[in-house]
Amino acid sequence: MKKNVLIIGAGGVAQVVAHKCAQNSDVLGDIHIASRTVEKCRAIVESVREKKSLKTEVRLEAHALDALDVEATKALIASTGSKIVINVGSAFVNMSVLRACMDTGVAYMDTAIHEEPNKICETPPWYGNYEWKRAAECKEKGITAILGVGFDPGVVNAYARLAKDDYFDKVTAIDIVDINAGNHGKYFATNFDPEINFREFTGVVYSWQKGAWQTNRMFEIGKEFDLPVVGKRKAYMTGHDEIHSLSKNMDGADVRFWMGFGDHYINVFTVLKNLGLLSEQPVKTAEGLEVVPLKVVKAVLPDPASLAPGYEGKTCIGDFVKGFKDGKEREVFIYNVADHKQAFEEVGSQGISYTAGVPPVAAAMLIASGEWDVKQMANVEELPPRPFLDLLSRIGLPTRIKDAEGDRPLSFS
Amino acid sequence: MKKNVLIIGAGGVAQVVAHKCAQNSDVLGDIHIASRTVEKCRAIVESVREKKSLKTEVRLEAHALDALDVEATKALIASTGSKIVINVGSAFVNMSVLRACMDTGVAYMDTAIHEEPNKICETPPWYGNYEWKRAAECKEKGITAILGVGFDPGVVNAYARLAKDDYFDKVTAIDIVDINAGNHGKYFATNFDPEINFREFTGVVYSWQKGAWQTNRMFEIGKEFDLPVVGKRKAYMTGHDEIHSLSKNMDGADVRFWMGFGDHYINVFTVLKNLGLLSEQPVKTAEGLEVVPLKVVKAVLPDPASLAPGYEGKTCIGDFVKGFKDGKEREVFIYNVADHKQAFEEVGSQGISYTAGVPPVAAAMLIASGEWDVKQMANVEELPPRPFLDLLSRIGLPTRIKDAEGDRPLSFS
Repeated sequence: MKKNVLIIGAGGVAQVVAHKCAQNSDVLGDIHIASRTVEKCRAIVESVREKKSLKTEVRLEAHALDALDVEATKALIASTGSKIVINVGSAFVNMSVLRACMDTGVAYMDTAIHEEPNKICETPPWYGNYEWKRAAECKEKGITAILGVGFDPGVVNAYARLAKDDYFDKVTAIDIVDINAGNHGKYFATNFDPEINFREFTGVVYSWQKGAWQTNRMFEIGKEFDLPVVGKRKAYMTGHDEIHSLSKNMDGADVRFWMGFGDHYINVFTVLKNLGLLSEQPVKTAEGLEVVPLKVVKAVLPDPASLAPGYEGKTCIGDFVKGFKDGKEREVFIYNVADHKQAFEEVGSQGISYTAGVPPVAAAMLIASGEWDVKQMANVEELPPRPFLDLLSRIGLPTRIKDAEGDRPLSFS
Repeated sequence: MKKNVLIIGAGGVAQVVAHKCAQNSDVLGDIHIASRTVEKCRAIVESVREKKSLKTEVRLEAHALDALDVEATKALIASTGSKIVINVGSAFVNMSVLRACMDTGVAYMDTAIHEEPNKICETPPWYGNYEWKRAAECKEKGITAILGVGFDPGVVNAYARLAKDDYFDKVTAIDIVDINAGNHGKYFATNFDPEINFREFTGVVYSWQKGAWQTNRMFEIGKEFDLPVVGKRKAYMTGHDEIHSLSKNMDGADVRFWMGFGDHYINVFTVLKNLGLLSEQPVKTAEGLEVVPLKVVKAVLPDPASLAPGYEGKTCIGDFVKGFKDGKEREVFIYNVADHKQAFEEVGSQGISYTAGVPPVAAAMLIASGEWDVKQMANVEELPPRPFLDLLSRIGLPTRIKDAEGDRPLSFS
């Protein structure tokens, strides 16, 4: 069953999504890319054609769309005959794109929680503030809506579910670790939209420990992890989307998220934050112009998509899971290692975009095949992990495990 | 002869100028304060009344004025009967205010070179790019225009002239050192308009050495100075207004300027500069808003005037002068030490504003008395230094000297 896919967004992740959809066009059908700036969509279309990524000849088109405009989005879904919408646009458009999908009866997915432009770091449970409020209606209408199906959140949720299903009788703690050991050669850049990237780190750090939300300050709790391939790396406890759904779905296990940061990143971030330049609240210049400082910081930073050509090195993202199996304590690390250069050669994007963009395509293929077409709203750990991880292993993001028995690839077929 | 003074600007320096004019209202007459934001002028008027700074009852009034509007400035000069204009507004308005003074036949002074908003760090000689082009016309019309009569430039130029006149047969090198050993208790702030402050340090560093302009990068050349009161301090070679006029007026002596910077300042500055946030060239946000990054940085930083209440510690600014006297090598350090807290108690401003704001009032008094009413354009080292330094010693900025014979106050009367 071919589905036809509408991709919302035209950044580095959208580029990966488009290439991966094209590589699987026999399963997914037509590909439409829509964003406010149609030129960026056209550049992706050209890149797909240049790399001859299309497996079979399908429609591959660029569209201008303000995704906050629900009626316009509905019209585009209808006119393109799309049955699956992969939303990898700004996190501000989630709720309006979801609305459009619910009204037109098509599948929805995204890779990050909804955010309102004027709020920063809402209180838990984040999904509960927006997306989950539409869960009952999705179920009633039979809408498949898969939330947070990038790498983290997304694949790491599947890792947690896999651990719970296959490796533990009882999981007691999940520590998700995200290390980018790559080097883009710029003075400073964020790997995602700077606006979203910084907003993640300017608020309170939430973690789920001892059956309750715990709060810390950013960079308050750091820890060195010794990881496969990338070695010893310092990471800091950070608030992150997946903590909020996993806290509900992992039988009360502790859930923490750790993001790797170099001293240089922390220094730049600290300077910008302390000066007030990461604020989403407008300030007025001496000339009377109202402007949001964070948007100016975004404007001066390199476009994350522009980092790809020179990017070298690897990422390592995975879940340290602790618990009990057959009455004994156990610990496993389920993870993926991705390579920036390899990602660029394959799809013209850097590794961070690659790890975020491949999973929603795998999810789309599972919706197309029916395996994940669950006719309701779901977070990734609520879905069977094995077909997802199996497919990911085949389309570019293989899963490995490291435990007492060694470090080895996992196979699911 | 009473002159009536029009003060352009309403920042921390203007506040000092207003108080000092008030304390000498018997000599200077009426005081008018004009700036774009009339509320800021009114606040200064209130502060002068609150501290009962007026020596004699004169008119003390606030006015709204866009000082780029030459006709409006001329009209205000005429309607207030002002005979001396003290321009301590933005450096962008120098040429239009000077024009208004030349057209109305009144005396002009400022404390920094003219700048164009869209240029940064022009090539030497800075004064030659703008102000000096009006020198012939000033002479012809008999206009007294004193350029750069703050502390540095200004008092340090008078120190150089004093050294040349009284302490040396031949001066070979002048090293002007500006150390602010004060602490304002904020994470980061500039002591002057951030826009002007940062622009000083984002371009090429010019110095006059071996009879020619030499160029360096900012923070390339650092040196520790051991100074009276403030002790050992690291300072960096910096481009600064006074180098440009002193290079012409000191018989070929080397002229260098050294500004004290702490590591924290350098770190914040470096981050902002490398990110492009100190740029005076507009960028466009994702939403299409055109904005100058530097103006946003200015908007988020503390207003320099707001630093005054909590400011503690001292400044030390002076000239290390080397040369020959009676065939022997000699070195003197002519300097002033000012106290932030004392400045705040006297005039409600911090020490940096105090050192910049008192000198133009001394100059105004010398114009009123005729001693500096030279009927032409002049840089401070072209004027007799003794009456100026004598007056400064009496109104808050005493001069000291340190040389082989010890460290002592200088008296000029």
